[in-house]
Order: sequence, then structure tokens, then C-alpha cells
Amino acid sequence: MLDTWNDGPAKSAVVDFVQRVTAAGGPDFVEPASRVAVFDNDGTLWCEKPAYIQLDFLIRRLAQQTAADASLRERQPYRAAVDGDLKWFGDAVTKHYQGDNSDLKVLGAAVLSANVAITTEEHAARVNEFFVHAKHPTLGRPYTTCGYAPMVELLRHLEANAFTCYIVSGGGRDFMRPVTGPMYGIPPERVIGSSVGLIYQNGSLVTTAQPEFLDDGPVKPVRIWGRTGKRPIFAAGNSNGDIEMLEYTDTGPGPSLSMLVLHDDAEREFDYTAGAEKALERAAKSGWTVASIKSDWIRVFRD
Amino acid sequence: MLDTWNDGPAKSAVVDFVQRVTAAGGPDFVEPASRVAVFDNDGTLWCEKPAYIQLDFLIRRLAQQTAADASLRERQPYRAAVDGDLKWFGDAVTKHYQGDNSDLKVLGAAVLSANVAITTEEHAARVNEFFVHAKHPTLGRPYTTCGYAPMVELLRHLEANAFTCYIVSGGGRDFMRPVTGPMYGIPPERVIGSSVGLIYQNGSLVTTAQPEFLDDGPVKPVRIWGRTGKRPIFAAGNSNGDIEMLEYTDTGPGPSLSMLVLHDDAEREFDYTAGAEKALERAAKSGWTVASIKSDWIRVFRD
Repeated sequence: MLDTWNDGPAKSAVVDFVQRVTAAGGPDFVEPASRVAVFDNDGTLWCEKPAYIQLDFLIRRLAQQTAADASLRERQPYRAAVDGDLKWFGDAVTKHYQGDNSDLKVLGAAVLSANVAITTEEHAARVNEFFVHAKHPTLGRPYTTCGYAPMVELLRHLEANAFTCYIVSGGGRDFMRPVTGPMYGIPPERVIGSSVGLIYQNGSLVTTAQPEFLDDGPVKPVRIWGRTGKRPIFAAGNSNGDIEMLEYTDTGPGPSLSMLVLHDDAEREFDYTAGAEKALERAAKSGWTVASIKSDWIRVFRD
Repeated sequence: MLDTWNDGPAKSAVVDFVQRVTAAGGPDFVEPASRVAVFDNDGTLWCEKPAYIQLDFLIRRLAQQTAADASLRERQPYRAAVDGDLKWFGDAVTKHYQGDNSDLKVLGAAVLSANVAITTEEHAARVNEFFVHAKHPTLGRPYTTCGYAPMVELLRHLEANAFTCYIVSGGGRDFMRPVTGPMYGIPPERVIGSSVGLIYQNGSLVTTAQPEFLDDGPVKPVRIWGRTGKRPIFAAGNSNGDIEMLEYTDTGPGPSLSMLVLHDDAEREFDYTAGAEKALERAAKSGWTVASIKSDWIRVFRD
């Protein structure tokens, strides 16, 4: 049980929590139907550095679009995609945080139209094709092996104790779904994420270029309720976008555990707190469990 | 198995379909994970005449609001609610179909604000309170006993064959959730319906007066995909608003069964086809299974 976790405060907190909520007749017992656990994906279940895995999927698609229509070559973000200019994509986000939204707007429009006007089946085929070939740029392993073994073990530990686990990510719902089964044992109906709007046409669902959900920050609790009709009692995240989800879990009437994964292992994975500053502050203040990759995980990946 | 169904074409179609998709090695075998079934609620799982059950919930709330603020007494739909003038509510819909939206707009605004600015927990408490007391106006039975016994038996038959069943209704998602467990054995995470938007505030989810989903017609397939990431292989409905859901199921690549419940039993339930004309036409054209309450159901209610 939790063999990939070192003995320490994070493992103890999980073991103790699970024992309390499953102890029939105990003061913290929770009915199995209410044992809902939610997990962020990027940086919580798989790597998000040096860039979101979905950004690689996007850039390949932008390059494909440019190959089919050379006139796109002169415009961003297509030029950056073809040139492999990852810095342009990173700068667009940095500029946004500095108050200049111009590049982010250009990027957003391209994101929304990258996979427009195809059926959900065609979209799944594009995603599957990507995952067959694509590898992590610095770790060298297929993206499908970039899941964190201790977190997958945690999913199984919770399920073995009658929890139902959901993924709740800012990443694309239909980008994640084809791989969450093989990677994490989480079926499509338990994947919550961002999405463009879909329209029904002649027996098929077709993608539009309109955003429907941006599943981040305060939207995460809304989408968790929309999907489950329940308040989770366990939540794991790693960034500022997870604070509301962790808080929603933490402020429920009964026992709960909110966990933050801390990326502090440059040797085996990555070492960064950018984008997680507020979450870490809040974790310290509210007594949330911090899982240090360096100290708490015996292994990072499965193979 | 299906003891509340008379032997006949509808029962045979269901039994045959289930046998085919569960026959390991057979040409129509479907993996358990893909055995998704969807059921409309109003008129498919419980009564919708003489008025939607949720309309009773609404009218009681409007009367409550009027009791708290007498100035509402002069305005519609509050006046109609206090006077028990059900005809005004029916006429608002009729006028809409005749091209006059004025009353429907007034009604819509009242619907959206009837339960505004309360937490999801408070909303559930209002719904539970309603179902404790409210009875069907002509059948005389508590609404919680207005579920159709043959359809509940069908849910169990499908589940016994490794199907996962969802409710997909134009009715309010969070209006249905408190009773779908006890009435149908369907947990909140498998209830898809209409909803106002929710916002996250200080650890709680709070209702707004903004519509988020109107889960009807072509929106039903969109919401089914959003929730499940799968195309159903079994669907049951009863009205024009179910056509796209039944078609989406019917046009999948493998075996499927689309069923329409026909209300033709004035003695035991109700006899009407208004609002189902196109669905019945389509059922005849596409060979969908029609379940006649009068001919196919041995009993209508459980008790």
C-alpha cells in the first residue's frame, strides 16, 4: 500500500485520513457514495514542464495547418509553431501577466480554431495519433509514460477504499480522455476539463471555435458539482488554479484532505514554484498536506 | 426479468437487444464500458401531466416569494401562482408556440430568479422539503411514487447486464438529483439536466439567475458527451425534445435501441400525443421501439 511513497508526513496524512473515513461506526465515517476524490492533471498526475503537454499537441497541429495553407506562415502563432519557437508561446503568457494581452489573444483564437469543425470521433483520432508518436522533449519518454507512479498508486489506494476518483483539469477534456484510461485507470465519464462548444449535426457532435468551459480556479468547484452533484472529500492539485478546488474540499462539513504536489526535484523531474506561490502559502496557512516529489516519492515514474 | 412488461414487440426488442450486445464473441457484442443508456425523465420515467412536477415546485416557491413581498401580488406570474391559476402558465407556453413570447419571457425571468442566491445545499433542502409534502393533483399519490415501475425495472435489467444508466432531462438537474436515488436508483453523478449558472463563493456554490444549460433537443447529445465522453447504445424518451438524443443513439456505428414511451392510457395514467407528434413520426420511419403504456405495461406504478 503506497509502496512508492516514503514514510513521512504526506503518506501518514493519507493513510490516516483513509482509515478515519472508512472506519465503520467511527466519528469520521463517510458513506462510500460520498467518498469523492478530485485530481488536477498538469503537474499533479503528469509533467507540465518545460511546457504543457497539450501545447505540444497544439503546436504540431498549427504546423500541420500551415503546411496545408502556406499563407499562415506569415502570422503568429503559426510562424512560431513552424519555427519551433517555444519562447513565443511562453512570452505570450508572460506578457499577459504583465498586462499586455495582444499575443495571448492571437494565441487564443488559434487554439480555438486548431481543431474546429470536426466530429468528436475525429478529434479523438487526432489525439490518439499524437500520443502514439510524441515524446517528452527533455525526459525522452513517451508522454503516456509521464504519469506520476505515486499518484496513480494513490488513485488505486482510494478506489480500493470505495472512493470514486475524478480528474479536474484546466487542460482539454477531450484531449485527456483518450489516455486517462490507460494511464490512470480513469474512464472518460470521470474526466472534467476545458472544452470548446460542441454542436449536434446529423447524428454527430462537431467542434466549434467557441469556448464553453475554462476549467480553472473558481470554475473547478462549479464543474465538479455539475458533474457529480457532490462535494469532494479529497483533492489534489499543484498550482494557484487549484486553490478553489482544494478550498471547496477543505470547507465541507465533514473530514477532508487537501493535498498540494510540490515540484522540488530537478534531478528526477522539475524544480519550480512559479504559478504555485499562492497555493503553497494557502497550504501552509490552512494545514493542507504538501507532497514533496523529492522527499515523499520513492519513484517518480512507473518505468 | 421485465415482469411488469407484457409479452409483445417492445419487451421482445429490449430482451433481444440486451442478449445481442452481451453475447461474448457474437457480432453485436459491446464492451461493458460502452454500454451506456440514457433516459429522459418527464413522461419517460415519471408523470408529466397535467403539468410538469417541477412547475408545482416553482408555483409553490412563487407563492412563498409573494408571501414575503406583497408587491409581487400585482405581477405575473406571481398573481397566477397565488391564485392557483394553472391556465396562465399553460397559456404562456401556448402563446409562445403562436409567436407571442411576452408571457413566456415574464415566466422565464421568474423561473430563473425563484431560487437565486442560495447555496447548492440550501437548494437541495428546498427540493427535499417539497417532495416530503407534495402530491400529484389528480393521481393523489406523492410525486415520489409517480415513477413508472416498468421503466425502473428496465433500468435494473440494463444494469444487471453491465449497462451504466443516465438520466438526461430538460428538467432541472439539481431539482431531480435529491430524488433520483430513492426513486430510480440513479445517483446524482448520473443525472444530466438543465441548470442555472453557479458561482463559487467562500467555500460554497451559489445559484445565479443566469441560465447555463437548457438540456433539450440538440443540446441533449452535447451534454451526454460532455458528461460521459461516450455515445449511448440505448436511449428512451417520449417527446419531440428527445428526437436528437434518440437519433444520436440510433446513428452510432454499432447496435443500438431507441425507445419512445407512448402515453395512451387515460385510465391508469394519461392519454396524449401533443408535443410528441414529430417523435412518433420519426419512430415509425426509423424503426424505433414504441412502448405503449396501455399495451406493454402490466402495471404503471410500483404501489
